[in-house]
Amino acid sequence: MLGERAHLRVAVLGASGYAGGELVRLLLAHPNVEIAHLAANESAGRALAEIHPHLATSPVGGRVLASLEAASAADEASFAFLSLPHGASAAFAPALLDAGLRVVDLAGDFRLSAAAYPAWYGFEHPAPAWLEKAVYGLPEVFADQIAVASLVANPGCYPTPVVLGLAPLLAAGLIGPGPVVVDGKTGLSGAGRALAEATSYATTEESVRPYRFPMHQHTPEMERVLELASGIPVAISFVPHLVPSVRGVLVTCYAPLASGSTTESLTGCLASAYESAPFVRVLPPGEMVDTKRTRGSNLVELQAVADRRTGTAIVAGALDNLVKGAAGQAVQNMNLMAGFEQTTGLTATAMYP
Amino acid sequence: MLGERAHLRVAVLGASGYAGGELVRLLLAHPNVEIAHLAANESAGRALAEIHPHLATSPVGGRVLASLEAASAADEASFAFLSLPHGASAAFAPALLDAGLRVVDLAGDFRLSAAAYPAWYGFEHPAPAWLEKAVYGLPEVFADQIAVASLVANPGCYPTPVVLGLAPLLAAGLIGPGPVVVDGKTGLSGAGRALAEATSYATTEESVRPYRFPMHQHTPEMERVLELASGIPVAISFVPHLVPSVRGVLVTCYAPLASGSTTESLTGCLASAYESAPFVRVLPPGEMVDTKRTRGSNLVELQAVADRRTGTAIVAGALDNLVKGAAGQAVQNMNLMAGFEQTTGLTATAMYP
Amino acid sequence: MLGERAHLRVAVLGASGYAGGELVRLLLAHPNVEIAHLAANESAGRALAEIHPHLATSPVGGRVLASLEAASAADEASFAFLSLPHGASAAFAPALLDAGLRVVDLAGDFRLSAAAYPAWYGFEHPAPAWLEKAVYGLPEVFADQIAVASLVANPGCYPTPVVLGLAPLLAAGLIGPGPVVVDGKTGLSGAGRALAEATSYATTEESVRPYRFPMHQHTPEMERVLELASGIPVAISFVPHLVPSVRGVLVTCYAPLASGSTTESLTGCLASAYESAPFVRVLPPGEMVDTKRTRGSNLVELQAVADRRTGTAIVAGALDNLVKGAAGQAVQNMNLMAGFEQTTGLTATAMYP
Amino acid sequence: MLGERAHLRVAVLGASGYAGGELVRLLLAHPNVEIAHLAANESAGRALAEIHPHLATSPVGGRVLASLEAASAADEASFAFLSLPHGASAAFAPALLDAGLRVVDLAGDFRLSAAAYPAWYGFEHPAPAWLEKAVYGLPEVFADQIAVASLVANPGCYPTPVVLGLAPLLAAGLIGPGPVVVDGKTGLSGAGRALAEATSYATTEESVRPYRFPMHQHTPEMERVLELASGIPVAISFVPHLVPSVRGVLVTCYAPLASGSTTESLTGCLASAYESAPFVRVLPPGEMVDTKRTRGSNLVELQAVADRRTGTAIVAGALDNLVKGAAGQAVQNMNLMAGFEQTTGLTATAMYP
Repeated sequence: MLGERAHLRVAVLGASGYAGGELVRLLLAHPNVEIAHLAANESAGRALAEIHPHLATSPVGGRVLASLEAASAADEASFAFLSLPHGASAAFAPALLDAGLRVVDLAGDFRLSAAAYPAWYGFEHPAPAWLEKAVYGLPEVFADQIAVASLVANPGCYPTPVVLGLAPLLAAGLIGPGPVVVDGKTGLSGAGRALAEATSYATTEESVRPYRFPMHQHTPEMERVLELASGIPVAISFVPHLVPSVRGVLVTCYAPLASGSTTESLTGCLASAYESAPFVRVLPPGEMVDTKRTRGSNLVELQAVADRRTGTAIVAGALDNLVKGAAGQAVQNMNLMAGFEQTTGLTATAMYP
Repeated sequence: MLGERAHLRVAVLGASGYAGGELVRLLLAHPNVEIAHLAANESAGRALAEIHPHLATSPVGGRVLASLEAASAADEASFAFLSLPHGASAAFAPALLDAGLRVVDLAGDFRLSAAAYPAWYGFEHPAPAWLEKAVYGLPEVFADQIAVASLVANPGCYPTPVVLGLAPLLAAGLIGPGPVVVDGKTGLSGAGRALAEATSYATTEESVRPYRFPMHQHTPEMERVLELASGIPVAISFVPHLVPSVRGVLVTCYAPLASGSTTESLTGCLASAYESAPFVRVLPPGEMVDTKRTRGSNLVELQAVADRRTGTAIVAGALDNLVKGAAGQAVQNMNLMAGFEQTTGLTATAMYP
Repeated sequence: MLGERAHLRVAVLGASGYAGGELVRLLLAHPNVEIAHLAANESAGRALAEIHPHLATSPVGGRVLASLEAASAADEASFAFLSLPHGASAAFAPALLDAGLRVVDLAGDFRLSAAAYPAWYGFEHPAPAWLEKAVYGLPEVFADQIAVASLVANPGCYPTPVVLGLAPLLAAGLIGPGPVVVDGKTGLSGAGRALAEATSYATTEESVRPYRFPMHQHTPEMERVLELASGIPVAISFVPHLVPSVRGVLVTCYAPLASGSTTESLTGCLASAYESAPFVRVLPPGEMVDTKRTRGSNLVELQAVADRRTGTAIVAGALDNLVKGAAGQAVQNMNLMAGFEQTTGLTATAMYP
Repeated sequence: MLGERAHLRVAVLGASGYAGGELVRLLLAHPNVEIAHLAANESAGRALAEIHPHLATSPVGGRVLASLEAASAADEASFAFLSLPHGASAAFAPALLDAGLRVVDLAGDFRLSAAAYPAWYGFEHPAPAWLEKAVYGLPEVFADQIAVASLVANPGCYPTPVVLGLAPLLAAGLIGPGPVVVDGKTGLSGAGRALAEATSYATTEESVRPYRFPMHQHTPEMERVLELASGIPVAISFVPHLVPSVRGVLVTCYAPLASGSTTESLTGCLASAYESAPFVRVLPPGEMVDTKRTRGSNLVELQAVADRRTGTAIVAGALDNLVKGAAGQAVQNMNLMAGFEQTTGLTATAMYP
């Protein structure tokens, strides 16, 4: 553990999107971090406050975004968050790593095996050697490996609650074997900042709709990491939906219930798995998860119910997709990598209502 | 078929809730109906416009709501819509039926077998003889029986798209056997008009949350009617969710995919089942259902996808819970019972955006 | 008055935007209209259902949009709605009129004097002769002129409730003289269908913000028509705001209160002005206007309060910007021009909740 | 200025409402504060986490709310926030003050002269002597008096941006004399946590509506404090509106423009007035205020425009009604009273989107 005044000089590469803005918001509240480098692609040359007006009065509001260049990032920082579109990260990360920076990648570019990229992301992976060294950045499961990693693949917003909710139950034999259904719901910030009629207010209000199924790229990520975490292979049928909200991911998972499992045994298993996890709240039987209670915080809420009538375990999880589902989890990973307390800079409670 | 000027004198009993208001809205646009009697329980004695200010300028805005009395309803009307809370309908319907009215009940009181009521609704059914005679009012499946029924049980909002989406596939052997998962999402009008912190604006905006599972009363309704419609028993694990919307129900159903079934065969089966159904739109592969496109109309959208990788058939359905999920379907049932074209008064397209 | 079966063959030119879609929705419910021609600019060649999926199951869902050509429109229709962007209507209308069609223009191109266009709309008016002949299509005020007009300028969404609310009070001397403040609030459909970050869901939810003031183009329209309607010149300071809603315009007008005026005298004046106006509801003192109660209907709600403490008359008005603020009012104008009852096809009550 | 480790033991009396919950959220992030006492009226005896589930994982989530008793509060704390309903504060504050606590009252009970309470709040003020000693807690204007006050009246959500926006312009003679119009828009958290049909989700979505005018109790507060701050008496006609949002207050003020005033002179006057005010952002000409950019932060955005055509100065202001409009401003006042930097614990930027 470093002393209280230890400072890490960090770079945010891809600062113009929603996750980039959220990273800056969280890093501004972090006592051991200096935002040393801000860069973007199309927005390079513009002030941060033009891109994120809500940060206008912050200490970095006037900072001009640099172009994406590994060398300048390495000059100014020793740690980098990569928040670029899928595909761009894989191409850019090696130069940063070679320049000696440690990296948390918020894209999906270091989460799967190389073989999976063509089918699920549509590209051949350009850096398979780094891919092998990347650690999956789910701190509640892989903390030790994260602490010493050079490259951490920050998890997707959907896989985070799915893996946290199912892995302990799989490992304990309380659910499975057999296929799992994951039904996801997300707010519109999950669709990113690019313009599209599908994300306009007039199109979205009063609209509930599935999208990009059954080939959403978070499916193989869930399957791979669940097996990694529990040792048990799982096939997942996943349908994500857009609902009229800005933040919030809720997943409802349906798995075969092992005979003898009850709501109490499922809940107890999760509660003991996350006893010392500061950002996981396992709800007592009867209470329902709610995305709104996680908004702006790094919290995940988990809930498990045994539907014994049909032999189904139902596990629901909720989080803020921009915090525990992206920027907050990235900061948590940085804390582990830098030797800070993992809660440093992440103690804000949810904003409610 | 009656002549164009045939008029039916109808009563709406329970006119003060959201479904009651929607019934009045739709009946005002029906060319063969006279709204002859409007009654309510706690709101008796008040003008309709006080209860539903959006109907203030309508021809019935000034009408005073009568008390709930079978005799007065029978004096003024020959057909009744019952829109009372669960439990109240079962107690009240027999008097209406004995007085010679034909009845569509919008509550859940005539949808299950008598044996199921204590467990799922919490009461012993008070009128088991009428329960046996009740016809399930899903016109796309039971039109002939509805036409001659005295008492029609209007379907629940969730069961309507689930049964429409799964029954033809089950009957054709394209899905099953095996357990089915139904993940439901609804807007807040589905929670009714009663006050609760859970339905306030401040609580609901940015909130996605499951509720009342695994014992939601629509579960046995889906199971029973699917078996009735397809001949095949099905066990359903159902989790409903509240999302920040006023109208709209979306269900996502996950069933075992029969070997050989494809997205095309599933879609084709549904398309031919509803070829002549005026209110069912089966989407071509690639297009996604959307609650917003059904808002204010009696339409159901259905979509089927074969996730062959995991052996799962995914069927999604969307409707407006107050129209095809309640008042619109009730009017459709009335049309069949009265010998009108089933689309009469229900041709309005959705209001978009 | 034409017979019940009289049919008017109408064209909708500019069918791809929100107002165009709403025109089609309303015309489909009109018993005396045949939608004979549908045309658009960039969307020409595509099916209506591709552009407006909520109309897919309607009788015109499969119709292919024609290009914008006056000759083809005139071949198929005798009446045209022009729903093109500002500037495009003024350029296109003369050809339609010369071809003998009667025209209702939903843009702002025929609402002001020629001299006002450069400053408020940024173009020299290309058809000043037609501009002189155009009649302002506010049926509650100019019904007689509308009935015989060839070219009707459909009012703006904001000017409609402002003129309806203030003109009778000005004419009666109950308010003014002196400057008037108009504070407007609108939902996002008023911003049109074009893509912009400002209209995305993530940007709009939880956002209240003014826009384009003090030079919004509805300002001179309000001033001009108020003088036309009341004989009294008025200077208006107008600030419109975007609020998180899809439909709905609410205006709150603040005018000098004539001495002696009371809430009762203001309300009474409005009530008697609109005694026989089917689409205007003047609220009794104490009741508050609400955009939601007008949604999907052609209704305007008006409310007047005398703030005698400060000498201010406060007049609030609410409507659905796509119906009474655009397409519904256009159909009402068409009814007057064609000799139909002005309520024909427009009797639907609001959809609530 | 106290040392970095100075701690203040504070009480929150009325911890169960939205403002109470927000106070706890902000105080948890304050480095110099210990939350020593939490009390409520009806919720006494329940755990904080039951009342505010989003605080369940915070250090005070398990704390049981005490009853409202001045003696116990004084035993545990030396500083109190009163967040009780209007009327209850005035009755309770004297006991706290007599027990030696310094108090910030978030209700309206110490903002007006005693003579104004019967007409605007409906009660005779029970503690006129304390009322005389109370200081109006707008730190940007009254910092010196606040620093030494025993009792601070925390401003209302609407008066805060109105006074900040107009006082410097009045004092400089850039606006007025003459009547001012204030048009306010607020989200639903401003209506508090009590249940009402008017605040349900189904009633509120797609609804824009005025309320409680022209006698809203913030009117005399604006008039009184503007005169206090500028020396110039002003009559205000104020209409507040509810819009579909949870947080956010936007005010649009219309005042007579002094001849010679321009957008630049108005903006320059505000900019220099708030040069060293950490929580006021004066926007450059052309940029528009937006409530969303202030959400969760203690920021006020101000914008001024000269509508020279009509002789009107338009000043718009935006803030988060629960932060700068309530709990955040209360903490800012506490900071001044305790000798902390006024920004301590309040540096969080807005949560966006």
